[in-house]
Amino acid sequence: MIRLYDYLPSGNGYKVRLLLTQLGTPYELVRLDIKTGVTREPDYLERNPIGKIPAVQLDDGRHLAESHAILSYFAEGTPFVPADAYEHAQMWQWMCFEQYSLEPCIGTLRYWRASLGQTPGQIGLDRYREKLDGGHSALVILEAEVSQRDWLVAGAYTLADIALYAYTHVAEEGDFELDRFPAVRAWHERVRRQPKHIPITQG
Amino acid sequence: MIRLYDYLPSGNGYKVRLLLTQLGTPYELVRLDIKTGVTREPDYLERNPIGKIPAVQLDDGRHLAESHAILSYFAEGTPFVPADAYEHAQMWQWMCFEQYSLEPCIGTLRYWRASLGQTPGQIGLDRYREKLDGGHSALVILEAEVSQRDWLVAGAYTLADIALYAYTHVAEEGDFELDRFPAVRAWHERVRRQPKHIPITQG
Repeated sequence: MIRLYDYLPSGNGYKVRLLLTQLGTPYELVRLDIKTGVTREPDYLERNPIGKIPAVQLDDGRHLAESHAILSYFAEGTPFVPADAYEHAQMWQWMCFEQYSLEPCIGTLRYWRASLGQTPGQIGLDRYREKLDGGHSALVILEAEVSQRDWLVAGAYTLADIALYAYTHVAEEGDFELDRFPAVRAWHERVRRQPKHIPITQG
Repeated sequence: MIRLYDYLPSGNGYKVRLLLTQLGTPYELVRLDIKTGVTREPDYLERNPIGKIPAVQLDDGRHLAESHAILSYFAEGTPFVPADAYEHAQMWQWMCFEQYSLEPCIGTLRYWRASLGQTPGQIGLDRYREKLDGGHSALVILEAEVSQRDWLVAGAYTLADIALYAYTHVAEEGDFELDRFPAVRAWHERVRRQPKHIPITQG
């Protein structure tokens, strides 16, 4: 059986849990407490040299890391990935946007605030403000997209929606003001109504 | 003809220029000076709502943004992308690593130092040190990979090599110490010896 190395509050891990559940692909969850530094230890680095969760061990013993690479591995050829070449690239456009412009702000600030329990003062006010502004800028871009269409690409629920839902639906845990983004909230609701949806807290 | 919106010193833009040149795909280069904020203006946002370069306009007028999504659009089905599903996902693993862990440190610090001409003091010493440490950590991971094999994945020169070459080969412009990474230097040399290679300064 596929083994998923994960940290339950992680949005990146949740993307993989959500997809595998919706695909009906069983997996064994190995919970790691990333706050202890366990993913930087030699034992784990042999599984994933990048030293992060999520990572998966496939049935044949091989490993794969980075949430979006894992999503793509399992979803290629399914309805979660557009068959059309341009729409396929658009899906990756939004997934790259998520990893570069959204997650480093919303995911990181949420981790500092909710997982590490740091105050804005402990984070450093400049640093705190920079993450907050960066995340809100990303939400402005997302708001414009999902106010024009139900799903990010190809007129269907795809990996792009899974990838951008993961951190944005819990953005308030990182002090982001979701009330400013009603179209994002409505899109969250559409994502939640998809078959076999699970919450981020589910393993 | 394909139109590429780009900023010549950009490693992200260079990835696309290098691939298109190696594929023999002609393109028209539209140079933008990103320092003026031109990519945040309404005119450009209609092309790319994310407000960044590179972006391409295809022959049919449609647009695509985010360097790795663009690379994938043009390279799928060519020797630059592994056909095997696992190797394909490994390619994305390293491309995601580049966008999340490497470029935000090496690319950003190089931009501040070389394009904006900021001193470490102007950047802020904590911020400067954080980017420097982050970039060196990414180079340690890359060094371990390319000391074990000639190419990042699939035993061949792929998009993963293009993606990780772009910023690492000019990392010294961001104060990173490439002399500490001899296997990375040797891999750079292998990349440079590929047919139709062009330097980052070429449009």
